[in-house]
Amino acid sequence: MKKPLILITNDDGITANGIRALVEVAQTIGTPIVVAPDSPQSGMGHAITIHSPIRLRKETIFDGVEAYSCSGTPVDCVKMAKNVVLKGRPAPDLCVSGINHGSNVAINILYSGTMSAAMEGSLEGIPSIGFSLLDFAADADFEAGKPFIRQIMEYALANGFGQSNLLNVNIPKLPYSELKGIKVCRQANAGWKEDFIEGTDPSGKKYYWMSGEFKNDDGGADSDVWALDNGYISVVPCGHDLTNYEAIDSIKELEGVKV
Amino acid sequence: MKKPLILITNDDGITANGIRALVEVAQTIGTPIVVAPDSPQSGMGHAITIHSPIRLRKETIFDGVEAYSCSGTPVDCVKMAKNVVLKGRPAPDLCVSGINHGSNVAINILYSGTMSAAMEGSLEGIPSIGFSLLDFAADADFEAGKPFIRQIMEYALANGFGQSNLLNVNIPKLPYSELKGIKVCRQANAGWKEDFIEGTDPSGKKYYWMSGEFKNDDGGADSDVWALDNGYISVVPCGHDLTNYEAIDSIKELEGVKV
Repeated sequence: MKKPLILITNDDGITANGIRALVEVAQTIGTPIVVAPDSPQSGMGHAITIHSPIRLRKETIFDGVEAYSCSGTPVDCVKMAKNVVLKGRPAPDLCVSGINHGSNVAINILYSGTMSAAMEGSLEGIPSIGFSLLDFAADADFEAGKPFIRQIMEYALANGFGQSNLLNVNIPKLPYSELKGIKVCRQANAGWKEDFIEGTDPSGKKYYWMSGEFKNDDGGADSDVWALDNGYISVVPCGHDLTNYEAIDSIKELEGVKV
Repeated sequence: MKKPLILITNDDGITANGIRALVEVAQTIGTPIVVAPDSPQSGMGHAITIHSPIRLRKETIFDGVEAYSCSGTPVDCVKMAKNVVLKGRPAPDLCVSGINHGSNVAINILYSGTMSAAMEGSLEGIPSIGFSLLDFAADADFEAGKPFIRQIMEYALANGFGQSNLLNVNIPKLPYSELKGIKVCRQANAGWKEDFIEGTDPSGKKYYWMSGEFKNDDGGADSDVWALDNGYISVVPCGHDLTNYEAIDSIKELEGVKV
C-alpha cells in the first residue's frame, strides 16, 4: 500500500523543535514533506503575502525528508506547497501544523499562524490538524504528547474527521503519566486582556510593546480550556464559516427601503 | 446628548481614500477618532505584532479629527486604540474599518486586515463593522455607498446588531441609482484557486508571486456573493467561534482509552 503523503508546516520556523517532533511522528506512518517558514512567524494569523515575491529554498535539515523553507507566512507555505512544490504531484493526504510552542485555545485560533496554516490546508480540501503544546519554553518537551499525536493523525488518515476537515489540538504541559487522554470539545469563549508596555528607545522615541493576560470566563466542561485545565488533550473540530446565523433574523430590519 | 465616539481604522493605510470616506460619514453622526496603519496592510488577516515594538504618531490629515498612524497591523491598531490612545477615556460606541478597496466576501474575511480589525473591535466588546467596496482601482468612487454606510452605522448605534456585534458589509461597484438596497446574508462557501507567477530577479534568483482567481460554487440566494452579483449591499452578521459543532459527535470515538 502506498504510504500517505503528510504535508508539515508550522509558524515557529523550520528550525523549531516542535516541527521536528511532528516530522518524527509522520515518518512512522507515512511520507513527510516539509514546507515551513524560514523565520519565526508567531501571531501572523491568516496573513498572506500579496505585494511582494516569495522565496523557496530546499533544505536538508531533516534526514531523508524532502523539505523547503519559505520566506512567506504560514498560510503562504501551505499555498506554496500545494501550488508550487507539489504541482503535478498528488495532493497531500494530511496537512499537519506545529507543534506550536504555546497554547492555541479559544480565540487564539484567530491570531495563530499554526492554526491558520492548518485552516488553509482545510480550505484547500486537505484534512488538516494544528498541534500546540502549552509550553513556551525553548526546551519544551514534545515527547509526552507524541503517542496521542500519532493516534490523531492515524485516525484522520483512516476516517477523516466526520463533518469537519480541520482539528485544533492542544496538549497540556504534563508528563505522559499524567495525561488523561483526548477530549473532543468546543472552542472556549475566552480571550485576552491586553496591556502595552511603554518604553523609550535609544534615540529617545516612545515605543509600545504588546503584553497581556489570558482571561477565561467560560466555565463549560465541554470547552477546550476546561479539558486542558483538567489534564486532557483538547481536540476541537473547526470550520471556516464565521456567519452568526442566529443574528441574521435579528437585523433583518436593516433591509427594506432604499435610503 | 453626547455624540457617539466612533473608532475608525482600515488596512489600506491612513492615507487611503476609503478611510477618508468613512471619516466623512462618521463626522455627520458622531465624533470620529482614527487609529490606522502607517502603510498598506492588505492581506494581513488577524496578524498581531508580538516580537517587536509598535510606534504611534499623531496625524493632522483629517480636518478637526483626532488621528494617529500606527506601525502595526490593523488588529494592532484596534488594540492600541483601546489600550493606549483611549486609556482612561470612555470606550468607543462603534468601531468601523475600511472602506476596503476590494471585496471581502466569503472566506476573504479570514485574509482581510479590514475585517480582522473589525473582528478585533468586536472581541473588545465594541459593536464593529467592516466596510468594503468591490473596486480595487486607486480612484474608486466611495460616494454611491455613503448613504447606506450612514444608515448601517446609525442602526448599529441605535440598536446594536441583535445577537451579533460584528457586521461584514460589502458594496457592489455600481452608481447610486443602480444600488438595490441592503440584504442581510450568510457568508458564501467560496474561495480562491491560487496560481503562483514564477520569475527570476535581477540577481538570477527565482521568485514566486501569489496570484489567483475567486471561485464561487455556492449558488444560494441567501449568500453574500449572490447579493452583490444582484446589485445589493451585503450585510453578514459574524461571530468568532470557529467550532464546527455538527462535527463534534462524529469524532467522539477519538476519546477513550489512553494510548
